[in-house]
Amino acid sequence: MADEARDTLRVLGIAGSLRKGSYNRALLRTAVELAPDGMTIEVYDRLREIPPYDQDQDAAGQPEVVLDLKRRIREADALLIATPEYNYGIPGVLKNAIDWASRPPKDTPLAEKPAAIMGASVGIGGTIRAQLALRQAFLFTNTHPVQKPEVIVAEAAQKFDAELRLVDPAAREFLRQLLESLATWTRRLRGGA
Amino acid sequence: MADEARDTLRVLGIAGSLRKGSYNRALLRTAVELAPDGMTIEVYDRLREIPPYDQDQDAAGQPEVVLDLKRRIREADALLIATPEYNYGIPGVLKNAIDWASRPPKDTPLAEKPAAIMGASVGIGGTIRAQLALRQAFLFTNTHPVQKPEVIVAEAAQKFDAELRLVDPAAREFLRQLLESLATWTRRLRGGA
Amino acid sequence: MADEARDTLRVLGIAGSLRKGSYNRALLRTAVELAPDGMTIEVYDRLREIPPYDQDQDAAGQPEVVLDLKRRIREADALLIATPEYNYGIPGVLKNAIDWASRPPKDTPLAEKPAAIMGASVGIGGTIRAQLALRQAFLFTNTHPVQKPEVIVAEAAQKFDAELRLVDPAAREFLRQLLESLATWTRRLRGGA
Amino acid sequence: MADEARDTLRVLGIAGSLRKGSYNRALLRTAVELAPDGMTIEVYDRLREIPPYDQDQDAAGQPEVVLDLKRRIREADALLIATPEYNYGIPGVLKNAIDWASRPPKDTPLAEKPAAIMGASVGIGGTIRAQLALRQAFLFTNTHPVQKPEVIVAEAAQKFDAELRLVDPAAREFLRQLLESLATWTRRLRGGA
Repeated sequence: MADEARDTLRVLGIAGSLRKGSYNRALLRTAVELAPDGMTIEVYDRLREIPPYDQDQDAAGQPEVVLDLKRRIREADALLIATPEYNYGIPGVLKNAIDWASRPPKDTPLAEKPAAIMGASVGIGGTIRAQLALRQAFLFTNTHPVQKPEVIVAEAAQKFDAELRLVDPAAREFLRQLLESLATWTRRLRGGA
Repeated sequence: MADEARDTLRVLGIAGSLRKGSYNRALLRTAVELAPDGMTIEVYDRLREIPPYDQDQDAAGQPEVVLDLKRRIREADALLIATPEYNYGIPGVLKNAIDWASRPPKDTPLAEKPAAIMGASVGIGGTIRAQLALRQAFLFTNTHPVQKPEVIVAEAAQKFDAELRLVDPAAREFLRQLLESLATWTRRLRGGA
Repeated sequence: MADEARDTLRVLGIAGSLRKGSYNRALLRTAVELAPDGMTIEVYDRLREIPPYDQDQDAAGQPEVVLDLKRRIREADALLIATPEYNYGIPGVLKNAIDWASRPPKDTPLAEKPAAIMGASVGIGGTIRAQLALRQAFLFTNTHPVQKPEVIVAEAAQKFDAELRLVDPAAREFLRQLLESLATWTRRLRGGA
Repeated sequence: MADEARDTLRVLGIAGSLRKGSYNRALLRTAVELAPDGMTIEVYDRLREIPPYDQDQDAAGQPEVVLDLKRRIREADALLIATPEYNYGIPGVLKNAIDWASRPPKDTPLAEKPAAIMGASVGIGGTIRAQLALRQAFLFTNTHPVQKPEVIVAEAAQKFDAELRLVDPAAREFLRQLLESLATWTRRLRGGA
């Protein structure tokens, strides 16, 4: 359980791509850099190790990498997800991690966890459809995503430089606002709990 | 490429669950049994082996299990997908297979492939949301799913027996109709091509 | 603006059907009856009068019935929507009311308004798809719907009696929980504001 | 019933906006202009007259404007829908027309009708979400929309001139391809029927 007395918000950041040069991993790195005072963002880096979800294995005992993911979600005050859009949805790799983390339903650390969603794409859609799909998963898990702003980075090749730094001023400002909004939302939900 | 002169339709069936006692695997086995004259359904069984999608690995060379999946999709006249619903979407495991099979976009065997979708759930929703999500993925890949009937097997525990045989007469009839519809749809799309 | 000092929560209830014998209007009447202490639910009854949304008319001046709807939303502490499912979405009639109420974007009473969603259908789906569509609209308007429980009344003819009273005990209990959840959610969002 | 022996495809075009200066109505006018040889596009112009859907009125007898809409859909070989995006869905006005046209389910002219979908927006999304919502409605009605290309005209103010002519070359080319695709798809579905 997150220490609710602390002033600092601990955010666990997860990028849904395994590609080294991923714009979404770069977007998450930018978030780390832009985190407002009072927020730290830890980047999750074991997505590749998570095995394919198998309910038999789940029942027999969740693997260590899954227990570690769940522990890190539980200890975080909030989540920050950077999702690519693959085939008009979120990557199977990211969904598979959520499938594990959502189990068992009575004890998932995703429940009641505040979250923020963002995404970058090379094309014009900017991960609009993937972000809606992720919100739908979070409805099931009762995770609470920030609604505004929606950080939709379309035509990413024009907004990141050659070193994969987000240089587009408008996109940087939206991202900064999203992090502020996540901080406010997390404190707002906590205060009323 | 499928031999379009053959009379027999070859269908590749994929169940989106790795669980041994999966209702969706059982639903697919029932489909094999109910296949109409002139249709054979081969059950895909390597879902567990497919590695997490990584665009770097994709660019360096797709693994053998992915090439095999793509070859089997290409050789089939149509697809039959039995999808569970996890977290209001399709399983990450199934999505990951689609993510691989959709690559590269210019040469995916999913394009223009007729398909049928079905699903079973223990709860009342019957995989409604997962089936919509799968249709959305197939819009991107330009796969052509049958629209009617929608085979939505809710409250599966009451419709399968202890040996996981689908015994509910109405569900069996819907499934039979779906297979007939897939045959008609496949021939209809082919005829006009 | 709602009087935040009051103890009583004022909820505006809107049913998305114009049919006299509508299960969704009956569901809303049941909500009025089951409202917990400290909550009153007013039933909106002018849906039929709202003209088709026309941006030219919007710019020239919103009609009285729209101004009245917006005033009633603004004065309510929360919304309660009972939506049928038509063609896998919410009724055009209900969407049209939302289209008016969402304008102008800078001054819509839907923004930041807590809400609860429910629905009843004759068939097995129970308005699952319509409820997801309504949540998507509320994402745009930044309305805050309760996530759990989801009140999905399938096979309504077996759950309402001949006088359109909801008699199914489980459905009544889910509805009661939704109203409790709406009260808690409204106070929680307010407390942190 | 459309005369299937004719060489000319008759398309009924419907724009989902009532606004005089609507980009979607302008997009539909451009489609009329770009229609390939062998296709004529008639523009539907009575959307404003369609009353709010009421199942009681439906049962008592559909109004003349609805019977006329259904007749025109029935006589058309295919539909072409230009939809704005309101509140992350299709306009209530357009949905309401579909709600009427879909009734009664056993005799709706929407069933088996080929269709093409397009949309324009001032913002960056280009009606992506509305087009998905419309596809979901067409799944229920068993209407058959073309899958590719998807005509998504974002940032419309830069793509239409002051007289609301579509002047962006890429958008014009996508629209031309969509109309070609609709013609091919309509003949393909017909040939195999």
